[in-house]
Order: sequence, then C-alpha cells, then structure tokens
Amino acid sequence: MAPPMTTKTGEAFNREQIESLFKRRFFFGPAFEIHEPVKGLFDYGPPLTAIQANFVNLWRKFFVNQEKMLEVDPTILSPYKVLKTSGHVDKFADWCTKDPKSGEIFRADHLVEQVLENRLRGDEEARGETAAPVEADADGKRKKKLKTKQVAIKLDDAVRDEYKSILAQIDNYGGPELGQLMVDHKIKNPDTGGDLEPPVEFNLMFQTQIGPVAGSIAYLRPETAQGQFLNFNKLLEYNNQQMPFASASIGKSFRNEISPRSGLLRVREFLMAEIEHFVDPEGGKKHAKFSKVAHIELELLNRQVQLDGRTDIDRKSIGDAVKEGIVDNETLGYFLARVQMFMETIGIDQKKIRFRQHMANEMAHYATDCWDCELLTSYGWIECVGCADRSAYDLTVHSKATNTELCVKEKLPKPLEIEEWVVDVDKKKFGPKFKKDAKAIETALDSLSQELREKLSLDLSSAGKIKVDVPSIAAGSAEVEKDLVKIEKRKRMQHTREYVPNVIEPSFGIGRILYALLEHSYWTREGDEARGVISLPTLIAPTKVLVCPLFNMDVFRPIVNDISDRLDIIDISHLVDSSGASIGKRYSRNDELGTPFGITVDYQSVQDNTVTLRERDTTKQVRASVDEIIDAIKLLTDGKESWESILRRLPLIESKEESQEASQEV
Amino acid sequence: MAPPMTTKTGEAFNREQIESLFKRRFFFGPAFEIHEPVKGLFDYGPPLTAIQANFVNLWRKFFVNQEKMLEVDPTILSPYKVLKTSGHVDKFADWCTKDPKSGEIFRADHLVEQVLENRLRGDEEARGETAAPVEADADGKRKKKLKTKQVAIKLDDAVRDEYKSILAQIDNYGGPELGQLMVDHKIKNPDTGGDLEPPVEFNLMFQTQIGPVAGSIAYLRPETAQGQFLNFNKLLEYNNQQMPFASASIGKSFRNEISPRSGLLRVREFLMAEIEHFVDPEGGKKHAKFSKVAHIELELLNRQVQLDGRTDIDRKSIGDAVKEGIVDNETLGYFLARVQMFMETIGIDQKKIRFRQHMANEMAHYATDCWDCELLTSYGWIECVGCADRSAYDLTVHSKATNTELCVKEKLPKPLEIEEWVVDVDKKKFGPKFKKDAKAIETALDSLSQELREKLSLDLSSAGKIKVDVPSIAAGSAEVEKDLVKIEKRKRMQHTREYVPNVIEPSFGIGRILYALLEHSYWTREGDEARGVISLPTLIAPTKVLVCPLFNMDVFRPIVNDISDRLDIIDISHLVDSSGASIGKRYSRNDELGTPFGITVDYQSVQDNTVTLRERDTTKQVRASVDEIIDAIKLLTDGKESWESILRRLPLIESKEESQEASQEV
Repeated sequence: MAPPMTTKTGEAFNREQIESLFKRRFFFGPAFEIHEPVKGLFDYGPPLTAIQANFVNLWRKFFVNQEKMLEVDPTILSPYKVLKTSGHVDKFADWCTKDPKSGEIFRADHLVEQVLENRLRGDEEARGETAAPVEADADGKRKKKLKTKQVAIKLDDAVRDEYKSILAQIDNYGGPELGQLMVDHKIKNPDTGGDLEPPVEFNLMFQTQIGPVAGSIAYLRPETAQGQFLNFNKLLEYNNQQMPFASASIGKSFRNEISPRSGLLRVREFLMAEIEHFVDPEGGKKHAKFSKVAHIELELLNRQVQLDGRTDIDRKSIGDAVKEGIVDNETLGYFLARVQMFMETIGIDQKKIRFRQHMANEMAHYATDCWDCELLTSYGWIECVGCADRSAYDLTVHSKATNTELCVKEKLPKPLEIEEWVVDVDKKKFGPKFKKDAKAIETALDSLSQELREKLSLDLSSAGKIKVDVPSIAAGSAEVEKDLVKIEKRKRMQHTREYVPNVIEPSFGIGRILYALLEHSYWTREGDEARGVISLPTLIAPTKVLVCPLFNMDVFRPIVNDISDRLDIIDISHLVDSSGASIGKRYSRNDELGTPFGITVDYQSVQDNTVTLRERDTTKQVRASVDEIIDAIKLLTDGKESWESILRRLPLIESKEESQEASQEV
Repeated sequence: MAPPMTTKTGEAFNREQIESLFKRRFFFGPAFEIHEPVKGLFDYGPPLTAIQANFVNLWRKFFVNQEKMLEVDPTILSPYKVLKTSGHVDKFADWCTKDPKSGEIFRADHLVEQVLENRLRGDEEARGETAAPVEADADGKRKKKLKTKQVAIKLDDAVRDEYKSILAQIDNYGGPELGQLMVDHKIKNPDTGGDLEPPVEFNLMFQTQIGPVAGSIAYLRPETAQGQFLNFNKLLEYNNQQMPFASASIGKSFRNEISPRSGLLRVREFLMAEIEHFVDPEGGKKHAKFSKVAHIELELLNRQVQLDGRTDIDRKSIGDAVKEGIVDNETLGYFLARVQMFMETIGIDQKKIRFRQHMANEMAHYATDCWDCELLTSYGWIECVGCADRSAYDLTVHSKATNTELCVKEKLPKPLEIEEWVVDVDKKKFGPKFKKDAKAIETALDSLSQELREKLSLDLSSAGKIKVDVPSIAAGSAEVEKDLVKIEKRKRMQHTREYVPNVIEPSFGIGRILYALLEHSYWTREGDEARGVISLPTLIAPTKVLVCPLFNMDVFRPIVNDISDRLDIIDISHLVDSSGASIGKRYSRNDELGTPFGITVDYQSVQDNTVTLRERDTTKQVRASVDEIIDAIKLLTDGKESWESILRRLPLIESKEESQEASQEV
C-alpha cells in the first residue's frame, strides 16, 4: 500500500482543500457542466491551460530539441484497418463484469481489488489496528476505486495472507482468473449483493464513421504511436537513413473508460506526449549518451519483487541497474533517467517518484518489457509515464498487413560471404510438365528452408527426384525429376544488412503528471491554513508576475502600464490586478495560482520610480528601480539567477505585506 | 476570379514543384498511406510540425498574452445535447445532390459553380479569348473544385452575364435555390451526364458514443467555441466579473467533409485557434485599444459589392472603415486589424491578403455578421480566419436549454428609477376561487406585458373585472374580479443592469494559414529553378541554424559539439549535418526547409576558432569568432538585430559557397 501523502512542509495532505481550490480558481471543471457533465471529460480553465502550454514547451525543449527527435503530428481519426492491424481492435479492452439484475457494469480487476481491500480494512478494524490509507493507484491496467462498504469482520490469518498476495499481483490477472477469484472469494455487486456474470472484454476505443452516407469505420486513436510507426519510412528517409533515431508526438488520445473517476487521473480524452525511439535490436540496444546519465539514481520496483508479493524499493544508479540486468538495456535505461531528470525540472517532489516494472500479464499486447514512472498522489501511486519496449511488434504487423517493407538497410562495413543452398528450376521444361500447377510448385520450391534444401539435394542425387508438399494444388504434393531442378550449395557476397528496428517508447500522460505536480506543489502557510500556496517552478507557473498598484488610482497608472509594456516586450506573462482588494489579499490570491513574483507600485514609486518585488514562497520583498526589478525578473524567469542571490544584492524591505499597505493608506 | 499566383520574385507560381518539395522533405503526407490513405486526413512531418508549434507559440503570445485573454482547453468529445442546443445537429450541414444511378454524391454549390465556370471557359475558348485562371476558393461555405470537362461552346451574351452573376453570389444560395439552378441550367452528373436528385442536407459532424454498452450519442466538436461558451460563468468569475474579456482556445476540430480535396485546405481534422470576445451589446461595441490600430490599412470586399456581382477591393484604414459603417463596430474592427498585423508578423505576403464580408445566406447559423480574412493561394482566395459577430446567440440558447443564467450583472453607477405596471394577486382568495387552475392563472397574470397591464388596469376600473388568456387550462381563459387582483403603476429603484454579452469571434484555421504561408514563402533562385527556397521568418522557421563541419572528420567535432551545446543552452533549435554532401548542397537542402542560418566549421576554424555564418535569402556569409557568431544568432533569432546590420559589422567573405569548399578540399 502507498504511504500517506504529506505536503512539502510535512503536513498531512488535504485533498478536499485542493479540490476546492481547483474549482474556485477554475484550474479545471467538469465539461458541459451546465448541461449535464459527462464522466471522465474535463475542461481546463486558464491556470491549468497555461501550465499545460508551459509543460508542452518544456517537454519539446527537453526531449525533441535536445535529443534532435523528429516530431510529427499524425491524425486522431484512424481507420479500422490500422487499429485492426496494430491489435487494438482485438486486444485494447478491459475485463468487465455485469450485474444482470441492475444492469450495472464493473471493471473486474477494480472490483476484486476494492472488495478485498475493504475486507482487509474491516479485519484491521476488528483487530483494533489503525486502518492504513487506501492505495488507489489509477494506473497499470487502469484500476479504479469503487465505493464498497467496509465492515469490521475479523479474517483468518491464512485468508488475510491470501488477500494480500492477490492484491500485490492484481495487475497480473486476466479475465478468467478474475472470474475465478470472484467465485472463490464470493465477490458480488457491492451495492446490492447481487450475483455477477463472468468477466467479458469491452473495447475501449471510440468508434465513428468517415465520409458521407455509410462511411468506413474509424476510431479515435488510443495512442499517438501508430501514426509514428506508419510514417517510419518517411522518417528514416528524412533522417538520411541514419539509425538510431526517435520520432515524437504531442496530441490528444481517447479511451472510452468504463467508469472514469479520480478527477484528472482516469479520463476519456487526454493529452499525451510519446516518443518512439527506433534502435537496432542487435548489439545490446546501446545508447550513445548513456554515460552522461549513468550516475542518475532511481527508485526501482522490479517485476520479481512484485511477484513475490512485496513492494520493496531498490534505489540505485541507472548505470548499475543496467549492469545488473534489472533494467534490460542502455536505451531503456537512458530514457528512465531522462524521465527522472525531466520530472525534477518541472518540480515533481523527488520523494514521490518511483519506477515500477510491469508484470507479464499486465503489459499491453505490444510490449515485451515496460517500466512505469509512478508519482505518489493522494490517490496512491499513479502511472504517469510508461516506458515500454515494443520490440519490432508494430513495424512487423504493419509491414505484413500492407506488404510494405518497414526496415533498415545498412551497408555492411565489409561484404559478408554467405554460403547457402540455391534451388534452380528449369523453367522451359517446368511449364509443359506441370501445366497449371507449375507456378505453385515453383513457389513451393522457392520457399523451402535451407535445411530442407540440403536434405532434398541428397534425395535428388540418390533417387533422381524429390517430392515437395504443395498444399495449394489438388494433389497436395508434386514429384520433380532431376532434369527439371538443381539444388546446389553456392557462395554469394552480401553487401547490406536488413533489420526491423526495435522501439523503445516513453509515453507521457500529461494530465496525470500535471495533477501530481499540483498535489506535490501545494502547501499552506502556518497560521493561514485556509489558503493554499502552489509552489510551481517559474518555468511552469501559469503567470510569472502579478503587477499591483497600491490602489486603483490614476496616479499609479503610468508606472503600471510602463511595467506591463516592458514585460510584454520581453515575453514575460503577467497580469495587472487593480482591484480594490488589499495587497496582501491580492498576493495570497495569486499564491493559489502559483504566480512566483509580484510587483507593487506605491506612492514612493511615483516619487522615485522604485517598486517592490515579492517572491511567493518566502514572501520576502526587495525594493529597487523599475529597471533593476525588470532585469531581476528576466534573470529569475530565465533561471539565470536565484531568488537567494537577488536577496543578497537588492535591498530587502522589512515591512510585512499588510503593514506596508497600512502605512501607505490614504 | 482570383489573380494568378506569382512568387515574391515575380515568377509564375509552380504548384507541382512545391508539392514535390512537400512530399520529398516530408512537410506533410496522406495519413495511413501504407495502408490506404483516407481523403482529407494528413500527417504533418517534422518541418511542418515544428512550424505549427512555432505558430501556436506566436499566436499565444500575440493574442492570449498581449491581450490578457483567458485561454481554456475544453474537450473535443461533445454530447448530443450541447450541439443540439447550439444548432449544429440541425444546421451544420452541406447541401448535397446524389446521382441515383451511380451512387455518387456531390456538394451542390461546388457542382453548380464548377459546371458554370467550365461553360464560361469553354465560351472564352470558342471566342478565342485566353482563359483566365480558375478561381477555386475552398472557403466560405466550403466550396470545392470538381473536375468537369470543358468544351469550347459559345454562349449567348445574356447567358454569359447570368452565369457570371450566379457565380459572384454562389455562396449566397440555399438548397432549394441550388436545386432550381440545377434545373434551370440543366446541370447533370459531369462524368456521366446522369440526372441528379434535388439537394438534401448532410450533417458534417462525426458521431460516436460515450460509455460502455449502448452509451450516449456524442460528436467530435466542429469548433472549439461551444466549450468556451459553456464555461462563460466560470470565466466571468475568474475575470473578477469584469467586462469585456475574451477567452481563447487552440485545439483540433473535425468536419466530415463530403469530398475533401485541395491538400491541406479542406480536411476532416484540423487545428483551430478561436477567440470569443465577450462585449456589452450596448454602447456601440467600442474597444479600448481601437485607437492603437485605427491607422492600419486593410483590403476590404464588402457584402454589397459582391451582391452587385463585382469583386472590387476597397483599401482603407480600419478607422475609416468603422467610421463609414463598412465594418460594423470597433471591436470587430480591432480584431480585423490585429489579424492583419499577425499575418504580417508570420510572413504572409501583404499583397495576398484581403477581408471579405459574408453575404446573408453564406453566414453560419449563429452569425449576424462575418468578415473572412482570405489569403491568395494557387487554389484562389482561401478563407483562413473567420471574424464573426455571433451576437448573443450561443449564450442565449444554452441558457434557455439549461435553465442557467449566462449573463452579466453590473452594478449601475447610480440606481435607476423604474416606473412600471405591477400585478398583485390576493393569494388567499385566489386558491379557493380557481382551485386547480389558480397557479396557471397566476402565472398568466405575472407574464403579462407592460402594455397589456396598462390596458387591463383600465378594464379593471371600468368593468370591475378582467379577462386573461390562459391556454394551459381547459377553459382557455379566465375572468378575474377586482377583489382578487390589483394592477397599479409603481416606482422602484434598479441597482444592477443585466445583459447577455455579444460575442465577436475571430476563428483561425491554422493548417490553411500555414499552407498559404508556405506558398507565399516559396521561390527559386535564378539559375537554380529545380530547388526552391522557403523564406520563412526566423520566428516561424522549423530549425533556426544548420551547423556543418566541412567534412565528417574528427578534427571538426570539438568545435561542432561546442556550438551545438551552446545553441541548446540558449534554446535555439538547430541541426548538425555531418553528411558527406558538399556544403553548397547541404545549405540548399536546408533552404528548402526554411532554415535561415548556417554555420560552417572549416580548417581555419580549427586554427583560430572562427566560423562562417550564412544567411538563407542573401546567401551572404560573414566570418567571426564562435562567440561573436553565437551572439549574432541570438540577436537575429530574437529579432533584435537584422541581417543587414550584421553584414555591416562582421567581415563578409566574398567566396561563393561551392568555391569556398573547393579551396579547402584536402
């Protein structure tokens, strides 16, 4: 179970308080609320939209620009054939169980998990133990909490252990196993006690039709990845045929969740950022820049530990993790480290991040290995970035379905001498002899394996003829005499090597990361617990500066307008608040929005053109000329100078916010 | 008809050439091409994706940040009730005509337009006149070209004039009129000559279902606007109840076009940026910053000119246009001017932009006035930004459908004394007297107009009773005696004013603008017509700098890596090209991508740490230390110094690109 959430100041995290803030200041809200909200659809209001835009720009800089990735923007609408080929039409589904009486539908894994967790909590209560906080991670195979009643009933020790073991590997069960667990442990509709049907699969894609009248079936993409795979040849060409390379895409994807809950954590429409790094499967999937990140330490929770029913964390450098084989290869390891670095840059609490390896049944149908970057929230550990090794799965299936080569052809440093068995057919005699079957028999001969060729060459010299299976002709096989065919071992020079690249895919769920980031950044000041502060890094903060005239009076306007124009010119997003509220109140309203800096224009400003600059987290203020303050803000927002350094070089004002104001009251 | 397209150097524009470039360098391509492309769906490759990201950031800076707009991110999935209320379920449709024999479906307006244009061209040919280039604007009500045969047949002068008059107002016809035109002018299936059915409406929204099993109907939004309107109350609250204000949104929208063509100009999935500016309908819709833009000159094509069958352009300042009533109000005028300024910033050719007013039937169902910003392309004039006055339409319909107030309540500067007729009902007697009808009669009395109240007060005093219509009761009306009701004129003080804001909506089609921008930026150098140059402004260019070592040799690597790292630190997107191609070839490959600057590292660099800096449009090169060159690039990309100024202060190298290389050949 996840540890309880605390704020950065060590207080217990209060989710109701932050939810009230999100609502009051329109970070986000249910979509179409005045009509009737649809579950799992949220509109982002101004603060979160700005945070999201800053996130996207940072992500693009950190990954696309610095790693020279090829960013593409493929369409959301995806025809049936594409997603049938990728396996999503058949396999992108959740196991659901229905109560035939009430018509209710439950995610089977969520239901089993919730019922067993509640029984365990009931047991603890009955034993007089303090109930641990619920671990409600909304990730992996998309779990979700159900409200089920908790009754204080003591369990046998053996039952208790069994429940714990089931819960530790809940993500590893398929539909039949879940059905069996429901039978074995008498899991019913938690609201009515009604019987439930065995789990069936429900596809999670939204379906539509393209074109007028009866158009062709299409889906809203469940991931951006397919659009990247389908453009592989164009991207390889764009990259001058150089390997390895990565493509990337930022865009909306859609999942028709059965029962979306947990606010922004399980939604039906979400912004993703996905990287598809194409790498040679041979040579151990090395990464040229791995040495630059090898020292980065990560908290790792590997597959075996989970299968053992444990959740021990292993903290070690990614260099060691790859060396010890915990993380499979350098390329996967490189991205885990880069994800960790990125999370630190955007302000994720470094004590609330871990990397968890998927268990075999938990992985998506296309993955051979997967590590999730999980962030701790008040809902538990949440999957926020999935780092999957998709091997050659996608390129291979699309290549087969379209009869198109999706591979790399590399000139060998020196040609290889290949010795192989070759079948030569005497075409002149072949036609007259086999008539309409000639073509089929020829094809059958061409597709013989090297082993068979060797064997048949012996038959040919010993018996003077060979027999080959040809399932497509009436006879089912054919006898070919030695005057019609020759099988010989020959040498040839191979100048190029062909291979289908493997794909390492870091896939970011942006809404989840932003939600976790907001929880990690939220705290309250001692003595002012009713109002929160969101300590976002300046890079991510929706507005960088709040400009406040002491009062809404003409005398302050020229200086305020001058500051605003100058901030516009240097592209620093800011707001002017000329409302009648006190300066202290205006600042505290902006602490809630994460605005890192505030400028106050007061009577002294009119006389000597100095203003005060206030920082959100320390609430300390300095006073200097407008020029100096604008310069300081530029340095602070560019990350070139710290607030501590500013405090050392510009004069601090001792007066508290409210008293400063009072002293200036007219 | 639109003028023929020329490049900025005055050459005839060659669309085939630019299309080949788009394909060769993967600006964009048909989505799912290896499976089977779906019409109207395109994937953006790396250059166009980067251009799009730069566009979005610039747009956000120019509109959202500088105008302090409230950017929101509403969902794409929109439930039935929302779009039923907005009128899109009933009215967001095109008129189509079907050939019952072949099953083909045509957009009726496109068909009529194309057939008549071809007859006119045939006539010109028959008369021996040179055929003018086709005007194939893909805008207004979504016109599209059909390939119909052009036969040289002379027309009567009267017929010719009639055709021209029809074409000038083709966007103004509804379905019945188009059907009549098809009958009157014998318009058939252009491929087969088959008869066509009368036009019927086809809804352009993609439909899907939300939720498991039989979910509820939803659509992919056809515009971002509805999500902004539905959040009106939250946004007004966020803006501290201050009016006017604007919301904005950037995101994908979808239209199930009947026959998407013209590349990026008529697609089924597209990125939009929409502004909803909420303004008080009283007081002439003034704009506080209008005086700042009043001098901006625009090319205007107003409604009356088009109805007269003409296309004369009126060039005047937006200040004069509003004063003369050509553009209805300051707010609409302000945005037209801002659109013009933005287009100039991103590099739109100022000779290829105009503003055209919609005709009455051409406007969307929600608009009371609309001006399109049109850009000239090789497909003709294309609507790229629609600036509509949606009046109070959307807020009113959603308010009614949800029984939610969507209005502004403003405290009046001084209370208003209102004199009005008031109906008082004696409730104690009313119930016993009218029994079950009492409530309905009371409601009927409450909803009487002021005029009726005045008249009935006279009846009451003269006849001692009044008769009121009550359609909801069996009797249909009721007689009320004077002891049960009193009607008096009374005074009261009104302290607040309530109104539903009007909405001015500039709506940007980003794909169309980018396509037009690429056409406007494309030209070829004299003597090198096979290879194009895309002269994008640095702000928009996908990559800012190409770094080229003279040869792919170790000796150059430290300097190249140093330059690359330093460009990363100052966030300047760049690529290193160490391929074996000649410097000239590498530059010319990047001229095609719009890369404005190139750095060459050569043998001299190794000795004195100087490098050359080359500018795309002039192909001139300067040489200076790495420090100086990096500084220059920073100034150039920030728009703080021009290339002309750099040329004056850093030493020019005279040698041509190819000869520079030849002289250094080892």
